Order: sequence, then structure tokens, then C-alpha cells
Amino acid sequence: MNDQLHIGGKAFESRLFVGTGKFADHKQMKEAIEQSRSEVVTVALRRVDIRKPDEHILNDIPQDVTLMPNTSGARSAEEAIRIARLAKASGMGNWIKIEVISDQKYLLPDNEETTRATEVLAKEGFVVLPYMSPDLMAAKRMQEAGAAAIMPLGAPIGSNRGIRMKEMIQIMIDEMELPIIVDAGIGKPSEAAEAMEMGASAVLVNTAIATADNPVEMAKAFDLAVKAGRLAYLSGLGPTSMRANASSPLTGFLK
Amino acid sequence: MNDQLHIGGKAFESRLFVGTGKFADHKQMKEAIEQSRSEVVTVALRRVDIRKPDEHILNDIPQDVTLMPNTSGARSAEEAIRIARLAKASGMGNWIKIEVISDQKYLLPDNEETTRATEVLAKEGFVVLPYMSPDLMAAKRMQEAGAAAIMPLGAPIGSNRGIRMKEMIQIMIDEMELPIIVDAGIGKPSEAAEAMEMGASAVLVNTAIATADNPVEMAKAFDLAVKAGRLAYLSGLGPTSMRANASSPLTGFLK
Amino acid sequence: MNDQLHIGGKAFESRLFVGTGKFADHKQMKEAIEQSRSEVVTVALRRVDIRKPDEHILNDIPQDVTLMPNTSGARSAEEAIRIARLAKASGMGNWIKIEVISDQKYLLPDNEETTRATEVLAKEGFVVLPYMSPDLMAAKRMQEAGAAAIMPLGAPIGSNRGIRMKEMIQIMIDEMELPIIVDAGIGKPSEAAEAMEMGASAVLVNTAIATADNPVEMAKAFDLAVKAGRLAYLSGLGPTSMRANASSPLTGFLK
Amino acid sequence: MNDQLHIGGKAFESRLFVGTGKFADHKQMKEAIEQSRSEVVTVALRRVDIRKPDEHILNDIPQDVTLMPNTSGARSAEEAIRIARLAKASGMGNWIKIEVISDQKYLLPDNEETTRATEVLAKEGFVVLPYMSPDLMAAKRMQEAGAAAIMPLGAPIGSNRGIRMKEMIQIMIDEMELPIIVDAGIGKPSEAAEAMEMGASAVLVNTAIATADNPVEMAKAFDLAVKAGRLAYLSGLGPTSMRANASSPLTGFLK
Repeated sequence: MNDQLHIGGKAFESRLFVGTGKFADHKQMKEAIEQSRSEVVTVALRRVDIRKPDEHILNDIPQDVTLMPNTSGARSAEEAIRIARLAKASGMGNWIKIEVISDQKYLLPDNEETTRATEVLAKEGFVVLPYMSPDLMAAKRMQEAGAAAIMPLGAPIGSNRGIRMKEMIQIMIDEMELPIIVDAGIGKPSEAAEAMEMGASAVLVNTAIATADNPVEMAKAFDLAVKAGRLAYLSGLGPTSMRANASSPLTGFLK
Repeated sequence: MNDQLHIGGKAFESRLFVGTGKFADHKQMKEAIEQSRSEVVTVALRRVDIRKPDEHILNDIPQDVTLMPNTSGARSAEEAIRIARLAKASGMGNWIKIEVISDQKYLLPDNEETTRATEVLAKEGFVVLPYMSPDLMAAKRMQEAGAAAIMPLGAPIGSNRGIRMKEMIQIMIDEMELPIIVDAGIGKPSEAAEAMEMGASAVLVNTAIATADNPVEMAKAFDLAVKAGRLAYLSGLGPTSMRANASSPLTGFLK
Repeated sequence: MNDQLHIGGKAFESRLFVGTGKFADHKQMKEAIEQSRSEVVTVALRRVDIRKPDEHILNDIPQDVTLMPNTSGARSAEEAIRIARLAKASGMGNWIKIEVISDQKYLLPDNEETTRATEVLAKEGFVVLPYMSPDLMAAKRMQEAGAAAIMPLGAPIGSNRGIRMKEMIQIMIDEMELPIIVDAGIGKPSEAAEAMEMGASAVLVNTAIATADNPVEMAKAFDLAVKAGRLAYLSGLGPTSMRANASSPLTGFLK
Repeated sequence: MNDQLHIGGKAFESRLFVGTGKFADHKQMKEAIEQSRSEVVTVALRRVDIRKPDEHILNDIPQDVTLMPNTSGARSAEEAIRIARLAKASGMGNWIKIEVISDQKYLLPDNEETTRATEVLAKEGFVVLPYMSPDLMAAKRMQEAGAAAIMPLGAPIGSNRGIRMKEMIQIMIDEMELPIIVDAGIGKPSEAAEAMEMGASAVLVNTAIATADNPVEMAKAFDLAVKAGRLAYLSGLGPTSMRANASSPLTGFLK
């Protein structure tokens, strides 16, 4: 089955994107990324010490993945735009995940500022993936602004609480043409599988892998779960019913 | 990682048990079983035409799996016992999944009759796996009666409604020594993964595979999901929190 | 609207049963019972010091309610039967709520022992209300044994976790003729209302009232919620839909 | 207990707002409003035939309620503003519920346009209550724009699906100073009670009342449920726990 994910002119086999925060060390991060088989990896530009290219985190990210720097730390469209340009100038490519966050408790994204940044950066040739609070109309605006995919949060970042905003994410999946990538909140492989069964194009996982007792094995688990969910989506899930439906014949056996 | 499931003196790599009902034909069933990589397959004795060994369903079940005939159609302990003995006499081995059902609408098992049948058959040397309505005290009785594993339903048979009895199943997993195998109700790979993350020892899936648009591919999806859920359980899921927890550093970047 | 609950030859206006445990003192308990407008109150015989009739808890339970002593502390049918007889002999009437619990962690009832006690006590003329782990077939056995109503748990006693066993309780409500009274687990008035909307005949609440910051006001809240849920059930809830349905006209206004 | 809701300089006893759509006729609507004891009633200006004051819907809305005309039918801020002014000019007062909807399938509000309309109308002296897609940052913008309260949807209008966006609505309740009024989606009294237990300041219900078999009785049920939920919120809900907590003493009774 040929089932690639296409974003920004690239084609991917894996539908699991991973983040690089919260790992014990670079070695563990590297192994986890490898075992996740992820082809898109996000990294906060803040972590990259541009002045010391020999020491920085990028050296420990596998070379064959697509780097998706994020604008973590930005509190406005302007700051996000500056960070994006800085990332590009540093040789990190033209992909950018926009995060604009001014709420420090729940780390919720600001959809309006995010849309503004998306518009500017898309015009400059970036492949823009906005992180957003699930909202169909805001997602449509980001699409008009040139987004390459939409990344709604399932629950607050790092909460491991699952896809709490399912209602709106399902509507977005059903109504939008752009790939919908569920980002933030996914705490278990079963939740990643569920997002894929709903029809999400991909998921991004970081905390759930990095804070597991065994992050490297957990990365494998997420790889399998995302594949399972995608395959289920493509294979057409059976109908649910309120009553029972016998799997085995029930009557008359011993008559 | 050595992580085998041990039941009735056998060891299994796969923790996905599958059923044989509702497939379009034997060929599809066979392929689905193969792709599921399942090592335990349940079949209603009723389906097996004992008089015509050349034609029956058993010919299309892979030879290397453990056959688990079930007593589907039994409405009492006595009927279940008769069916079990018949299965054994027909050369189907000494494993038996006990189903005693008198409710024809929701097909809910009768825990008391099931326990009675378990006791008789365990004494006769059967490896007994009782299908039951989730209830810790009933499960303990089945354990005392000699059950080799306990198979609580997640939701009514064939409903594809998921693990609706989660509360009690989690308690059973936490409190029982015997393997807990979630049977009935699982409609999606994500739900199978969830059962495994909860600590179930295995899951049994039939309707969700057989009624998918593509049962063979769906069987693969369940195989992956069960592996994902088991691996996640073994890898130690991270904690959930009400608030957000930054994956990426948030402050001071552009100062 | 005449909508009384009939059990054991009595008719009740209120469908909220309350318990007497965990209150700060008898005065608070008494006020809470009064404000709950409950007409059926359960009390553990253990709390009643039979030798000192002047001091015991019964003096602080309003005179006009039906007393439903419970067999809390019983670990077998025999113990439950003894407690029931003792309660009757002490002048507490012929109602009895059977609790047979041997699991000390989750306090889950033992359906088989409970059914046995039900049978003996119903024959002796008790109005028997068995507390049970939700299970349709076990409930049918209790009905045959002479139960006057069935009291399935929503979640473990005192957990305030809500109606976690909804799937099976709904089936019991739909399939049984006897009144179904949801007992244990209800932690919020909204959950009591939900039980009533599902078609439960009544609910029993104790911990959620007694452990509130203000138990007397919380008792009022539960009274209102139970009335609301019952009224909603009788008024025929409207259908749910996946899509939106305009409440107000949407098109052409400003054309 | 003095527990009034204050909005736009007015104080209300009832925290149930009701809508006027979908009733069988004006007589039924009038009775339902009366029985709901609601003090704030929303009406689509579109329904009001301004040229024929003798015949219009306003004659059947109780005189003592606060009228909250809504801008249903508006697809942009400009249209909403025009409708609001028209409502005021027609003598319907200075309250306005802003609805700006361009999505015709799920009828989801457009937060950006809604914020723009809020700003203009608040400056003109309107008491503005924006209907919105739950999003903390958008709500903060509406607050800055002069909103008097925020009305997030629980689920799509008329779906009767309950509070599906609970995660974000709870965050809004916790983080915002303005009253949060849950609007749209509430299908059952238990769900209205739940919104109030979460700390919502009020709920708006229309479809669930109007499409009940008996809308007048259902209006009563919602009145009771909202009071129950509010009272529970004020009375301090007890803690939930994973384990059981005995309501009655468990040990040693028969020793």
C-alpha cells in the first residue's frame, strides 16, 4: 500500500513526528528518535547554540530526518517571525512550527497571532505548520494564510491527558483539506492510534516518550500505534451498535 | 525483551487472540488470522461439522495456532460441559472458552453457571478460559474453580463499543494473579492498545476484524496495536497532569 | 403528575435515598437528611447501640422516613442474615439492604452470597434490597430470589467517581422489571441527575453529601438534581445529533 | 444565601438563560419560559417582524425578563453590528448576543469576527455577550474588547451532545474574571448541572427544551438542575478517590 504523507513538497512514510525536549540526555534522545522511525523532528531554536555548532543538539538528531524548528518562547507574531528567520539563517531549513504562547499556565497558543505569523512566513517561502487551539474557523484562516498543515492541540502541552478536544479536532479533520496533525496532550500509544483512526494525518509526541520510564522502548510503542491507527483508518472500521451481535451462532446447537 | 504470555503450559509471543465468526469466507478468515499473527484462535464448535472432517472450518485455521473451541450456544453449565467434551473428543484439544448465555439481546454471560462449568471442566483436565461479565468476586470464584485465565467482556459481543466496563476490568487486572484477557466489545485497534496499557494480558478480537471493510489489513492493525499497548505498559507510561508542562524552554529567548 | 416510587408496599415521593455515615456529628446528619427530603435512610446496624436506646443514632433520624438498615460488615450470606434478623428484632422494621463484602480494598459486593441472603430473607418477609456489582444475570437471580429492588454500584463505595458502570446499569434498567437504584460512586448532583435520566428508579447517596464542605446545602442540591433528572426522563429527552441544528434562522436576514 | 449573577448592571436570581427557537408555537414557548424561571431570554432578531408589532414573538415573551436579541444570520462583524443596532432601534434594549457564523454545517462561530463586533458594539454602550468557540486567548481578547460575559459552545448548536469542549471551558472558567456562560450543546439537565458544578456562571439552553416530548416540563427540569449544580458548586464537592472508602463501618461487627 502506498500511503505517504505529503507536506511542503516532501513525502513521508512515518506519520509520527517527535519532539526533542525533556530527555535525560542527547544519547537517549537520539536513540528514541531512531526507534520511533520518525522522519520529522521538532526542536526549539532556543536549544540550539548557534555559536557553537560542534556542541549543539542538532548533532544528535539523525541526519536523514526533516528538521522542524519551532518558535517556542515567542509571545507574539513578531517574535515568532524573528525566530523563524534566525532558524533558517542558521541552516536549519525552511520548515517552521509556529508556537505563539503568552499564557504561562496552560501554554495555550494564540490563534490570531499565529495566523499573522503564518501569513508572513508562508510568503517568505517557509513551510509553515502552526500549532493552534482547535477551532475550525481559525484553522481555515491559517489555511488561507498559507499553512502547509494544521497542528491542533489535543490537550495542554505536556499534560499527557489525551485528545480532550476530540469534538473540534474531528470536525477539523472532516472539513479541512490540509493535513491535520494532532500535537500536544497525547500521553499513550492508544491515544495516538485513536487520533489516526479519527483520520488525523499525523501526530506529534514528545513528553509521553521522554517521560516514560524507558523512552526508547516507548518510542517504538508509539511507532507501532501510529501505524496501527493509520492502517485501521484505511481498512474501514466496522460499525458500532448498542446491542450485541453474535460472533458465533447461538441457537439450537444441542437440540 | 522476553515477554511471553503463559497459559495452560504453553507460551505465546502474540497477545492477540482472534475469533473466526462473521468473515465473508474461509479464505478471508485464514488470511486475516495469518496477518494477525495470533497464536490462539477461538471457534464455535457449532461451526465444525464433525461428520465431514474434510470440509470443515478447522482446515482453514493455520496448523500452528492453539485452538480454543468455545461453547457458544450453551445456555447452562451442563450444555457448556457437553460441548466442551464433544470438542475434546473431536480432536480439538483441551482448551475451552466457556460461554454460557441465556440473555439473547445483549448476549451477556451468566457468571454463576460459567463458574460451575469451569469447576467441572478444570477437574477433567481442560485448560478453561471463562468468558464473563466483569466482577472481581466472580473472577475470584472462577480462579478457585480452576480457570487458567479470565476473559471479561469490555462491552456486549459484537457491539464494537470499546472497553465500557473499564472500571471493573482495571480492578480485576490490579487484584488478580490470573491473566486477564479482554474479550468482546473491542472495536478499534486503539481500544486494544488501551486494554494492554491497562495491564491486560491479552485481548480477543473478532467482530472488529471481520466486519472491517478490509479484514486482512485490519488484522494487521490489531497486531500492531496490541504490540504497541503491551510495549507501552512495559515501558512505564509517564504521569498525567492537569496543567501544561513545557516540552521546550519558554522564557527569555529573545531578550 | 403522580409519579411515586413503589417498593415493598410503600409509596415514596422522593427518589433520593441517603446514608448516615461520615457526617461530622448527629446534628449535621439530621439536618442533611431533612434538607435532602429523602424518605428512605440507610444505617449500618453496627452504628446502633442496641443496649442504649436513648443515645443511639436512630434518635437523630427523622421519624417519618423508612429505615433501611444495612448489613455492612457482613462477609458472607450467613452473617448478612444474622444482622438482618438482629435489626428486625431491634425494632428497625423489615427493610434490609444486603451488603456482603469480603474484598477490603474496593469494597466490592459478592453477588452470589448476596443472592443467597436475599432468598432466605425474602422468604422471612423482609423487603430486601441487595447491593450488587452490576451484572444483568446476577440481577435476574436476585429478582427470582425475591428482591424488592436492585442496587447496583456506579463505582466503588465512597469513591465519588460517578457512574462508571454505565453500560451494564443501562442494560439492567432496560431489561429488568424491578426498580434499579444506583448506589455507591455518585459524587456530584449532575451524576445523580444522569442516573435518573437513564431511567433509574432512585439513587442512594452518602459520601458525596457527608464529605462536602457544606453537607446540608449539598443535600439540597442532590434533592433538586434527582427531581430534575426524573422530570427529564418523564419529559422525553430530545434526540442528539452529530451535526449542528440551528435554533435560530440562519440565512438571508440582511439580504 | 445571596448568590446573584451580575451582568451589565443587572442582577439575576436564575442562572438559566433560554432560547426561543424550535418550539411548536408561541403558547408553548411562553409556558416553557415561564416554567424555566429564566430571567434572560434570547431571540433572533430575524424572528421579530418589526413592521407588525402586534403579531410578533416579543408579545409572547414574559415582560419581566431581560431580552437578549442575537445576531443569528450574521456572517461577518459588519452584519452582526447592523443587526445589533437594528435590534436596539426596535426597542429591544441594549443587550446583544453576538453570533457570527459562516460555517453552515456545524454552525461554528468565528472568533475573530466576533471579537471585532464586540469591540464596536461595547463602545456604543451595548451589553455584549459573544458566542464563541472555546479558546482562552480568544476569550481574553473579547474581554479586552469590552464583552460583559463570554459564551463558549459546549458542542455544535442543537446537537444535544453535551459539554464536549470541557477541557477548554474549564480552563476558561478557572482563568477568566468575566462570567462564563455555557451555550450550545447542552442536551440534558445533568449536563447543565455539570456545567454549573464546573463553575460556569450560567448556561443557555434552547434545543434541549424545545425538542423534548414535553418542553414545558423539561424547562422545569432544567431550572432544577441549574439550581442543583450551582448549589453543589457553592457547597464544595467532596474529593474523588481511586479506591473505595467505607461509608459504614466494616470490621468486627459479628465478632
